[in-house]
Amino acid sequence: MDLYKIYADNAATTKMSGAAINAMMPYITEYYGNPSSLYSFGQKAREAVEAARESVAKCIGAQPREITFTSGGSEADNQAILSAAALGRKSGKMHIISDEIEHHAVLHTLKKLEKEGFSVTYLPAHSDGIVRVEELEAAVREDTCLVTIMYANNEIGTIQPIKQIGEICRNKKILFHTDAVQAVGHIPLNVVSEYIDMLSASAHKFHGPKGIGFLYARKGIRLTNLIEGGAQERGRRAGTENVPAIVAMAAALNEAVGHVGEYSNKASALRDRLIAGLSEIPHSALNGDAVKRLPSNVSFCFEGIEGESLLLLLDDKGICASSGSACTSGSLDPSHVLLAIGRVHDVAHGSLRLTLGDDATEEDVDYIIKSVKEVVEYLRGFSPVWRDLCNGKGKFIL
Amino acid sequence: MDLYKIYADNAATTKMSGAAINAMMPYITEYYGNPSSLYSFGQKAREAVEAARESVAKCIGAQPREITFTSGGSEADNQAILSAAALGRKSGKMHIISDEIEHHAVLHTLKKLEKEGFSVTYLPAHSDGIVRVEELEAAVREDTCLVTIMYANNEIGTIQPIKQIGEICRNKKILFHTDAVQAVGHIPLNVVSEYIDMLSASAHKFHGPKGIGFLYARKGIRLTNLIEGGAQERGRRAGTENVPAIVAMAAALNEAVGHVGEYSNKASALRDRLIAGLSEIPHSALNGDAVKRLPSNVSFCFEGIEGESLLLLLDDKGICASSGSACTSGSLDPSHVLLAIGRVHDVAHGSLRLTLGDDATEEDVDYIIKSVKEVVEYLRGFSPVWRDLCNGKGKFIL
Repeated sequence: MDLYKIYADNAATTKMSGAAINAMMPYITEYYGNPSSLYSFGQKAREAVEAARESVAKCIGAQPREITFTSGGSEADNQAILSAAALGRKSGKMHIISDEIEHHAVLHTLKKLEKEGFSVTYLPAHSDGIVRVEELEAAVREDTCLVTIMYANNEIGTIQPIKQIGEICRNKKILFHTDAVQAVGHIPLNVVSEYIDMLSASAHKFHGPKGIGFLYARKGIRLTNLIEGGAQERGRRAGTENVPAIVAMAAALNEAVGHVGEYSNKASALRDRLIAGLSEIPHSALNGDAVKRLPSNVSFCFEGIEGESLLLLLDDKGICASSGSACTSGSLDPSHVLLAIGRVHDVAHGSLRLTLGDDATEEDVDYIIKSVKEVVEYLRGFSPVWRDLCNGKGKFIL
Repeated sequence: MDLYKIYADNAATTKMSGAAINAMMPYITEYYGNPSSLYSFGQKAREAVEAARESVAKCIGAQPREITFTSGGSEADNQAILSAAALGRKSGKMHIISDEIEHHAVLHTLKKLEKEGFSVTYLPAHSDGIVRVEELEAAVREDTCLVTIMYANNEIGTIQPIKQIGEICRNKKILFHTDAVQAVGHIPLNVVSEYIDMLSASAHKFHGPKGIGFLYARKGIRLTNLIEGGAQERGRRAGTENVPAIVAMAAALNEAVGHVGEYSNKASALRDRLIAGLSEIPHSALNGDAVKRLPSNVSFCFEGIEGESLLLLLDDKGICASSGSACTSGSLDPSHVLLAIGRVHDVAHGSLRLTLGDDATEEDVDYIIKSVKEVVEYLRGFSPVWRDLCNGKGKFIL
């Protein structure tokens, strides 16, 4: 029996593409040498790493020397923010601007910095999940050393006005970092034209392998080492280079960027069909702006149900979905993102995130709509909260 | 044409075993779900991660909860030392004991701590490359919070008296960390009977994949996060778990530990044959103790030559070898390890490390001996330093 019928959790992780696997395997079975070694066998691995760096750089409009390979998006986020903070501290600038719906890799790093004396302004994301450029501009202070705003949200898929934010930062000579883990390979993106100084990405979100990612840092920005040791990555990240994963990431990204336009059109159409279908469910609401969102992301709240039960029943129907971020599952707290866009606790608990893959079809979408409708109706039938609401005890919010 | 005839740089990296590749592939092609997800497809990955944790723990005598997966040995070293330092700082203990021949992942982390006010005693490794237990005991202070001594050296292969060091630390209630990157899977090792509190390991040194390793931390030791973010690894290491690599590491370690006795006997015999052969070269010397060393490690210095030329000419003969650590190649400084055991600069520059694989044969060893003899003789023929020495200008050291 298949483990699932429809995998609709591509924001959590994606399946490695054939191109990525094919690119990777020779560096496991044949050219397994350490790229830091002098002999030609090792140099073969070195060349592969540098070719991958060039390819990755090109995909985001950067220079090869501006790319540092990391173990993933979280490491890249940590390193970017701590690097900017170290530079800020040196020049007496200890204010950072971020927002309320960042990934925990950003938020927890900022919390750590707050304990060390930094002050952080968390901009609101408003009910549409979008940061306001004017509010960002107003938050800038003399001592602002960093603005870190994610490219696209991992839970509700909203896309931030990155270019405008970048332009403000560049004009005011403030470093601008963006956690682009959900965006890279999914929407067109260019670090130069969008004035991005630092950008984090993770391969397994664009059909590359797990355990690898990269940090782009514009030429001249001195990175602080998160992992001390050998002189790999020009002294900015110690540890033997994960050659097979680096090569696979480059292949996956190249493929994703190559068909990003076509993918985006197709995915957006399916996304909108899914949104329309799920909107027919009474007392439901889409989370985040309907237009400024990732082509693959559909995020809903349904009143009167528990997200966890919803997921388990969808699993029974062969649908892989999540309530929000995979990184925080297991936690009983409702999503900080949903709370930030104004969902109250009870409503935030009844959330569902569906992130379709490249191979999704209209039939898949229709099956998901049918299944979610059935499951929501079924669960509401058992829900005391729902019964109370229907009986006029308490008020519907959605 | 083959890229090499004999791969003798297994301390730099090893080829993934068939068992490791076979264990890994299903988690790339089939069960690629995010282990933090609720649906059964993701839980399949979760189960694999936890089974791997159990297997890895068993291989070193630990409990599963004591294992944290990291991106490799360097990350594990950094996290172990910074965690112990954070605990030390809390209790006003800011002295650390280490030694002069540690890996840079340890040394550079200690340097960082020194800048933050910690004081570090670096024990000498003496001419045999072995730390003295009495000297360690004498270095202990009231405010010592950590002893970090590597299990076996990555350049010269010497094995430290870990159990005795562990016992001293346990008696004095000082945390004991060992960088066991070169030891795990190569020699028998047990964290309980050797009183080890924290241990770092890297999969690609024992025929597992690159980009994955683990940190063992004895129950009750609170780890400081190096990478902040999601709640993975029970909140001690953020980032989506690298499921395929974790599973492959467990398979590789299980295999390595399963035949460690047999491997050790065979490898030691080949090592000793190689040492005997190379010792016939005039003005050469083995680096580090001849007995207390890794079964696969042969490290020599040859007077009057440049290690780099030696490596390139051996490469021409199809032999992959290194001068010392792969992590510091590219640097013009002579190895800190060779300097620490008393080799002067010129001699340290003429170093050669050969680390044989499981599949090495007597024929391989004899071919290496013949080749090194030829190449050393050839290079000395061109070396002005050697000519001067032969003409009585300057003195032979070896």
